[in-house]
Amino acid sequence: MKERILLLIEQGKYAEIRKEIIEMNVVDIAQLFEEIDQQKLLVVFRILPKDIASGVFSYIPYELQRYIIGSITDREIKSILDELFFDDTIDFLEEMPSNIVKKVLKNTDEETRKLINQFLNYPEDSAGSVMTIEFVDLKKEMTVKQALQHIKETGVDKETINTCYVIDNNRILEGVISIRKLILSEESAVVKDIMEKDPAYINTHDDQEKIASLFKKYDFLSMPVVDNERRLVGIVTIDDIVDIIDQENTEDLQKMAAMQPTEEKYLKTNALVLAKHRIVWLLILMVSATFTGNIIRKFDDMLQSVVVLASFIPMLMDTGGNSGSQSSTLVIRGLALGEISLRDALKVFWKEIQVGFLVGLALSAVNFVRIYYFERIDLSISITVSITLFFTVVLAKVVGGILPIIAKKLKIDPAIMASPLITTIVDAAALLIYFSTAAWLLGI
Amino acid sequence: MKERILLLIEQGKYAEIRKEIIEMNVVDIAQLFEEIDQQKLLVVFRILPKDIASGVFSYIPYELQRYIIGSITDREIKSILDELFFDDTIDFLEEMPSNIVKKVLKNTDEETRKLINQFLNYPEDSAGSVMTIEFVDLKKEMTVKQALQHIKETGVDKETINTCYVIDNNRILEGVISIRKLILSEESAVVKDIMEKDPAYINTHDDQEKIASLFKKYDFLSMPVVDNERRLVGIVTIDDIVDIIDQENTEDLQKMAAMQPTEEKYLKTNALVLAKHRIVWLLILMVSATFTGNIIRKFDDMLQSVVVLASFIPMLMDTGGNSGSQSSTLVIRGLALGEISLRDALKVFWKEIQVGFLVGLALSAVNFVRIYYFERIDLSISITVSITLFFTVVLAKVVGGILPIIAKKLKIDPAIMASPLITTIVDAAALLIYFSTAAWLLGI
Repeated sequence: MKERILLLIEQGKYAEIRKEIIEMNVVDIAQLFEEIDQQKLLVVFRILPKDIASGVFSYIPYELQRYIIGSITDREIKSILDELFFDDTIDFLEEMPSNIVKKVLKNTDEETRKLINQFLNYPEDSAGSVMTIEFVDLKKEMTVKQALQHIKETGVDKETINTCYVIDNNRILEGVISIRKLILSEESAVVKDIMEKDPAYINTHDDQEKIASLFKKYDFLSMPVVDNERRLVGIVTIDDIVDIIDQENTEDLQKMAAMQPTEEKYLKTNALVLAKHRIVWLLILMVSATFTGNIIRKFDDMLQSVVVLASFIPMLMDTGGNSGSQSSTLVIRGLALGEISLRDALKVFWKEIQVGFLVGLALSAVNFVRIYYFERIDLSISITVSITLFFTVVLAKVVGGILPIIAKKLKIDPAIMASPLITTIVDAAALLIYFSTAAWLLGI
Repeated sequence: MKERILLLIEQGKYAEIRKEIIEMNVVDIAQLFEEIDQQKLLVVFRILPKDIASGVFSYIPYELQRYIIGSITDREIKSILDELFFDDTIDFLEEMPSNIVKKVLKNTDEETRKLINQFLNYPEDSAGSVMTIEFVDLKKEMTVKQALQHIKETGVDKETINTCYVIDNNRILEGVISIRKLILSEESAVVKDIMEKDPAYINTHDDQEKIASLFKKYDFLSMPVVDNERRLVGIVTIDDIVDIIDQENTEDLQKMAAMQPTEEKYLKTNALVLAKHRIVWLLILMVSATFTGNIIRKFDDMLQSVVVLASFIPMLMDTGGNSGSQSSTLVIRGLALGEISLRDALKVFWKEIQVGFLVGLALSAVNFVRIYYFERIDLSISITVSITLFFTVVLAKVVGGILPIIAKKLKIDPAIMASPLITTIVDAAALLIYFSTAAWLLGI
């Protein structure tokens, strides 16, 4: 299919292309667009019907959007903007350089221009910046018949009609009603009697992470957004929430792997930017790792006399780090999903002590058998390593479980307390345990 | 609100409780249920209207579901099951012990029992196990008026009416049509002329991860599920997909932190089970860390003569591990979101070399200044450490970027190639580079 259309484009058979392409889903057309060379792209874009063209436009990457807007006439820009949903317009303008934004604003009427400027001013990742203004509003005095008639007349330009919003004359939100409820009710019923009163709503300045958790908790398909006077100004729909969930998860992962989060796609980001996002934490962690170096240097007499001790340092540090990151990952994720809250700190502490005890015991036993019986290491050194391993694992589990909760309590993002930071702490502790145990058992 | 109801329950004022509680969202009632003690829980559950009771039932934790089903009469079970959506029934039965399943099955009619058994047999995490059977089906010959009438008559028991499915007499899927399209069309229009033909569909055995990515790509609210003969057997709705996205993300995170994934919530899992999920990978990684130990032991003469070398091992290993896990995290995430594919291997390789070069250079420079000028370490040792750091970072970046892609190519889950495994590989490599450079520069 795709190959055939690309071939048709090659051959310049535009009538046939149009016939084929308008049968496709706009998402697939958008994907196809990424593979057409730029000169031909514009021709193909121009032969598309207006509604399909703007649908495709909202799904292509920002570079292509910029190229197209930069190349088409003012009149064509106007016709795309007319068809584009408002939230897609904002998404796209947020990523454009100022000359493109100016070119677009020039082609909108006074009122839309004001609205666009207002939306561009909402804080990034707030409800205001993800909401759409194309929703169905009803009055509570309407009958079901009138409401359905109203939807029929205005619905075509709305992003969704599945949920409708009931407002008073000052646009204050009074209720919500689903299209299902309208269809299943008597035509003569009055909206105010069948609508859901006191619906859940969000504020324009609410953070998208909070919004996503409301959607997840209540299985909403859309939610109303109100301003500080409780006036309905927009709605957020589930398709945007799905993107937000992925984005928040990606950000958490990046923080947990000691990077500064970015929304840019990996393949589209150049090496310098990638390096910049990674280096800060690497530097911090590298410098803190000097503490471990200092500890080792303090005990260099001991290492010089029993040099085999050095060979167990990597294993002890890795196992400690891995044990800690298992715990921190589970707790950070539990906090993010709302399954663990601050008052669970003691429960987490107690659970990690138990898990640490079990895991530590098993690992030390295996380790002891391995190094004493198989590698034939001296008994007191084998015992030293095994004891250190046990305490390191228990400590790593407890630190890994508790630090994210402490971070949250201090209003620091728990994801920052992930393995790299915990590894650094556990490393230092493991070495101190190691050398103290060695000093005590080996008498040096 | 919650406190007041808990107090009313304490005082046994059930009429008032009922009045308050039926105004609440079922999700909030379900949350309240977790705080009521078990004897009173049953009384409160019984005073709820049937539809609210079954709504609440589908949101409470499995232990409470088991307790309630184990305590109420057969007649009451029947009335809950009647109201429960079929996918919620399956979700709940999948978690129940066999005596409860039997008790439930006894209270269903022949046909439902057969259906339940069929659904319980779908593979876990397949479309069959998450789909629902309560959807609206239409015939293509219907007019819009007839279709709306049909929805009005049957819609009340459906999970959603927002998208309707058009099937032929053999239940073969022929098209989909949204309620919006129906409402906005003329009453006399015929469904087959306005429906979307050849809609995207999923098979009962498709994996939930694949389904989620289709929903994300096309912004679907629901998708039809067909059997091998393309007969429509169910639909999957977006609210289930949101849960699946979170669940898949959690699983990926767990794998990346070297754990066997589990769907159990952290606080509800006992220490023994948690320990079991964590120990396998810790053991594997601990044993592989012996390679690094062996490398160190091979060079113990060198360490004995220049014991300060040992003190930089932790810093080198940690920085290598952190550098690698940054790259592997980005690539694993990119693969999971479909932003990176197998054919991008070379691009990733080249990007990571560049990033490694930049980051490695910066880190070595800072490190050299720090240890040579501030810690006054011998020049040749400072150079050895800095050179090792540079090559370790570059290597870690490349290994971290490429291993997940190789894993995917070999059809192994890329998430397993995350930091712990990469750390172990990078550790060994870092030590070899370290000792070789030392041997060369220090002439030992």
